[in-house]
Amino acid sequence: MTPTITAFKASPDEGRGLARDMPVRWALEEVGQPYRVQLVSFEEMKQPAHLARQPFGQIPTYQEGDVALFESGAIVLHIAERRPSLLPEAADARARAISWLFAALSTVEPPIVECEQTEYAEADRSWYRERLPIMQGRIQGRLDQLSARLGDAEWLDGAFSVGDLMMITVLRRLEGMDIPEDYPNLAAYVARGEARPAYKRAFDAQFAVFEAASRRDD
Amino acid sequence: MTPTITAFKASPDEGRGLARDMPVRWALEEVGQPYRVQLVSFEEMKQPAHLARQPFGQIPTYQEGDVALFESGAIVLHIAERRPSLLPEAADARARAISWLFAALSTVEPPIVECEQTEYAEADRSWYRERLPIMQGRIQGRLDQLSARLGDAEWLDGAFSVGDLMMITVLRRLEGMDIPEDYPNLAAYVARGEARPAYKRAFDAQFAVFEAASRRDD
Repeated sequence: MTPTITAFKASPDEGRGLARDMPVRWALEEVGQPYRVQLVSFEEMKQPAHLARQPFGQIPTYQEGDVALFESGAIVLHIAERRPSLLPEAADARARAISWLFAALSTVEPPIVECEQTEYAEADRSWYRERLPIMQGRIQGRLDQLSARLGDAEWLDGAFSVGDLMMITVLRRLEGMDIPEDYPNLAAYVARGEARPAYKRAFDAQFAVFEAASRRDD
Repeated sequence: MTPTITAFKASPDEGRGLARDMPVRWALEEVGQPYRVQLVSFEEMKQPAHLARQPFGQIPTYQEGDVALFESGAIVLHIAERRPSLLPEAADARARAISWLFAALSTVEPPIVECEQTEYAEADRSWYRERLPIMQGRIQGRLDQLSARLGDAEWLDGAFSVGDLMMITVLRRLEGMDIPEDYPNLAAYVARGEARPAYKRAFDAQFAVFEAASRRDD
């Protein structure tokens, strides 16, 4: 059965692949699973039909027969569990890959999202400039530790896994924050992820949605 | 094999059960799995031995033979997957329980932690009072949606699951923020979680660590 995911009809990231359908598309491409996409508008996301499948009115969701999921982390894990290649078979390596998946979302991402949301909501407030280094310091604390752990390795723990997929997705949100340049090994790690054929197919698919929306607006 | 978890030797929450070993202890108690605890000081958490098992220098970690995990979400999921009672058997219900686990950590918790960290780091700054309603608004947006979805139900989706365990853990961080009173169904939901015998055993175990530390300080 072909799964269906939801994505923004008009993504606020303008085709940069920073919306949360991107890691789901990427995971599906890594495991070679074809999928359908249902695009939803911001208006539709607040309606009961969408809230029934996503209680917080967000994208993405994932439906495959009777199985319905929300939260990109849960969806990516589900995809990785059911088809080989994104989770190691050995119990210890599998446990570490899932630890990295949670670390990306629970430990590395929150200070990055805080910085993004604050720019969006408070860039014109008097305190914004003075607070920026405080928020950047929280991000750098995490990146220092991540960079130290990664070292010169290709991926976080052996072969590319669902943990790398989500960590690279999260690190891509730093684009435009002038931070990655201080961490050349993290920048190279992100570039390795972006060079994967599955990543490129996922990126192109979400970019095509942006292009189609742009043509409608012309 | 009896698993070993790590927890704070001197928890900054002073025995209130708000540190991240609490959901791990709770999950272990729910499934009836005995465990050992290794207490670590803030100094030890920054040393190579601890960083090798927790790259971000945090607690908890989980070790069971060759299997070593970090991140409370990953640990709780691992416990739930290997022993019955915290994850439904049916694939669709299981997928939803895991979605709620990620929603607790990725969607509901970040604005709460932002508010906590800002109080800790910026309470004496000129802008703090003016920013507080902005941060509280972000929390309330999530709670409005969570409260609407929970309604009058006992748990988020059928029987108590790993999703409820983590969501209640996250909501407990609101203590002292004057917010839960506006959401009587969420307050009752948290109280139902805290009334579970497994919760109480977990709470008492972490409180005993605090009491022992207090006696040492006398």
